[in-house]
Amino acid sequence: MKRPLSIAPPNRKPRIVIVGAGFGGLAVVRGLSSVDAEITLIDKQNHHVFQPLLYQVATAALSPADIAAPIRTIVKERKQMHVLLDEVTGIDKEARTVFLSSGASVDYDLLILATGARHSYFGNDHWAEHAPGIKTIDDATKVRRTILLALERAETNRQENVESRDELLTFVVIGGGPTGVEMAGAIAELTRHATSMEFRYITPKCVRIKLIEGGDRLLTTFPEDLSAAAKTSLEMLGVEVLLGARVNDIDATSVTVGEDRIPAATIIWAAGVQASPAAIWLGVEADRAGRLVVGSDLTVPSHPEIFVIGDTAAVIDANNKAVPGIAPAAKQQGEYVAKTIRSRIRGKNETSPFRYRNFGTLATIGRKRAVVDFRWTKLKGFPAWFLWSTAHLYFLVGFRNRFVVGANWMWNYLTFERGARLITGLDRGMDVQADGEDLVTKQAA
Amino acid sequence: MKRPLSIAPPNRKPRIVIVGAGFGGLAVVRGLSSVDAEITLIDKQNHHVFQPLLYQVATAALSPADIAAPIRTIVKERKQMHVLLDEVTGIDKEARTVFLSSGASVDYDLLILATGARHSYFGNDHWAEHAPGIKTIDDATKVRRTILLALERAETNRQENVESRDELLTFVVIGGGPTGVEMAGAIAELTRHATSMEFRYITPKCVRIKLIEGGDRLLTTFPEDLSAAAKTSLEMLGVEVLLGARVNDIDATSVTVGEDRIPAATIIWAAGVQASPAAIWLGVEADRAGRLVVGSDLTVPSHPEIFVIGDTAAVIDANNKAVPGIAPAAKQQGEYVAKTIRSRIRGKNETSPFRYRNFGTLATIGRKRAVVDFRWTKLKGFPAWFLWSTAHLYFLVGFRNRFVVGANWMWNYLTFERGARLITGLDRGMDVQADGEDLVTKQAA
Repeated sequence: MKRPLSIAPPNRKPRIVIVGAGFGGLAVVRGLSSVDAEITLIDKQNHHVFQPLLYQVATAALSPADIAAPIRTIVKERKQMHVLLDEVTGIDKEARTVFLSSGASVDYDLLILATGARHSYFGNDHWAEHAPGIKTIDDATKVRRTILLALERAETNRQENVESRDELLTFVVIGGGPTGVEMAGAIAELTRHATSMEFRYITPKCVRIKLIEGGDRLLTTFPEDLSAAAKTSLEMLGVEVLLGARVNDIDATSVTVGEDRIPAATIIWAAGVQASPAAIWLGVEADRAGRLVVGSDLTVPSHPEIFVIGDTAAVIDANNKAVPGIAPAAKQQGEYVAKTIRSRIRGKNETSPFRYRNFGTLATIGRKRAVVDFRWTKLKGFPAWFLWSTAHLYFLVGFRNRFVVGANWMWNYLTFERGARLITGLDRGMDVQADGEDLVTKQAA
Repeated sequence: MKRPLSIAPPNRKPRIVIVGAGFGGLAVVRGLSSVDAEITLIDKQNHHVFQPLLYQVATAALSPADIAAPIRTIVKERKQMHVLLDEVTGIDKEARTVFLSSGASVDYDLLILATGARHSYFGNDHWAEHAPGIKTIDDATKVRRTILLALERAETNRQENVESRDELLTFVVIGGGPTGVEMAGAIAELTRHATSMEFRYITPKCVRIKLIEGGDRLLTTFPEDLSAAAKTSLEMLGVEVLLGARVNDIDATSVTVGEDRIPAATIIWAAGVQASPAAIWLGVEADRAGRLVVGSDLTVPSHPEIFVIGDTAAVIDANNKAVPGIAPAAKQQGEYVAKTIRSRIRGKNETSPFRYRNFGTLATIGRKRAVVDFRWTKLKGFPAWFLWSTAHLYFLVGFRNRFVVGANWMWNYLTFERGARLITGLDRGMDVQADGEDLVTKQAA
């Protein structure tokens, strides 16, 4: 491949702009620590989130600060680096400028887009209001509020209205991938413990949890026997698993599966994602999920100065396989991009194509079960859970979070208490909508 | 005093309704643990808040879950007790019924109102939008968002607009009582550390913190030398203390003190409180601050079955002194009410009037200074801070919170890192109003 050898004019440092401080973006930052360049990191949140544990915030096992760290704190040793809390509104590829919603703009010599994905409702965007997904801290605290308020309202409601109580105590999770499986298991444990220990009128028998999957098994990326193990584990926790089920409609009080209308106050979406609008900013080709199609060197065709990584990119790697949209893949892509940039700065222009290394995939089900697929071996049950916990703790950014999350898990495990079980955003008391509607969404709508 | 001896008809248990799960309400619950009665605890939040530490959430030193505990978890051993997440809308004194915003109602034989206070803007309610106070978790996360966003915007703004940068980096706290002093000190430490370590364009010299007090000294309930010590400590932290200063106006971008308009993006109200509307519910006399005037037995005149305690009550105690609106007083009143009820249930009707015991008052200034007034002795500086920390940890509800807060403080102390420094409620990115306006308030307005 032919590349322009000089990244920046000789009279100044190269300007590297990284958009997105997720796993991919931070891996680039880390890989460029020894590089003498002017680096700007832009994110629309002020914190990095450890997304694989967001479901634990949504089910009140952890607090937001346990799994999120301010970006400035993470990069504070990089005295040269600029961090901007801002949102990209457009990119001029020819002028090499990124435009931001604050009105500011930033010029680049090299641009890395690592802006992740949001939920996709497959053309039914009006479902989003009633069936939120979990991609950010605010998503997670919103779902937490919805779940906890449903329990509270069912308790206040008492025996007075059985239909309304059943609706309040039906929790539907849509999507049988790792997030859906983890959410359903965590809701089962939260509601079972809370209703048996801390409520007077509602009991575990009143609660129904349904996990809805369109395919014929859960965790389709895992081997079949682990899918079966996950299903059995969920059923032992009281989750009803519906396979081959098609969601036809969602409204404020129900989800319609096939022809069957299921009244439910809490509906959670874990069924699909849509890439961030990076392809639109650049005016280039995107696939059906909105992902920008990049080469196996992770650059945009005809634009070797623009890299796209993580959930925003559609990549066929050196093994001729599509790279999955998971945290380890984003990290590896970030490391690859940093290595490419280091080579270019040294004047070398040859890099071998990106190759995703699959070290294994994990999903956890409740307090002490999980499934792990290492390809060379498989684990389930408690050993899998233990490995899952250790791996997640290990990958948490920053010692403090690792320590706090560890202490929290230990505490949960020993006592079943959920210290983070706060309903926030209720300040105007009962002015909050009865369906737990997101105030932020409503405001912005 | 003559009392009706029987609380409830002999054929059923007495029904005791407690409204408010603050320090006062929970002290009543605790004091009634051995009483055979049907007890209902109503609160409009699902959690008890340790209010004296709310300013630490507002300045990102602690997370919400560190200083708040779900009410159901606190009382879970009381299998007889009902907890309702609901809000009082009215009370029928004759029928002895409490009406709730969910539409439900609860009958009582004995009623305890411990509903606390909100901020008072002395007739300028439109100031509330621009100068929020800190009484709830949502208040605190809102102020945290305002402070952190101001820093972020000043950084993005850079040198481009000095006036706008100065406005963003001016933090005004109104009210020189313990809350105002603690807020000003905590903001000084947060901004100084953040601007010197983690921002590139803004420096500690750009930041101005003003504490505005109408009286001629800070902490007017403390001895004069401690007021002076607090002022000196704040000034050492870089806080400008304005005494005898009168706030004439507040708008979205400034506060007018006397004739002097001070542009400021962050304005925090710590100047006055207004009792909850308990007097209105009951249709009885209230004082100027909205507090219900009760006898020295803490009951409403002519209604020995209704007790009012804490910030909602105006009480002249057995020492002929007004009881202050602080946590220890609310706790003592709660214990007193529980004792009175236990006596009545045993058929005894004589109780000596309530007497407030002042064990000392404390205020902290930043990371290692405080002032303590024990009446028999006074402390300032580090020993006072150490005592303050220990006392607060001791009084935190629940071992888990005590442990987590202790670990957090230690961590803050050693590293100056603020793990809770998350800006939440930003999910729609820059759609959030530039003045950091509260989404919940706006939505409800």
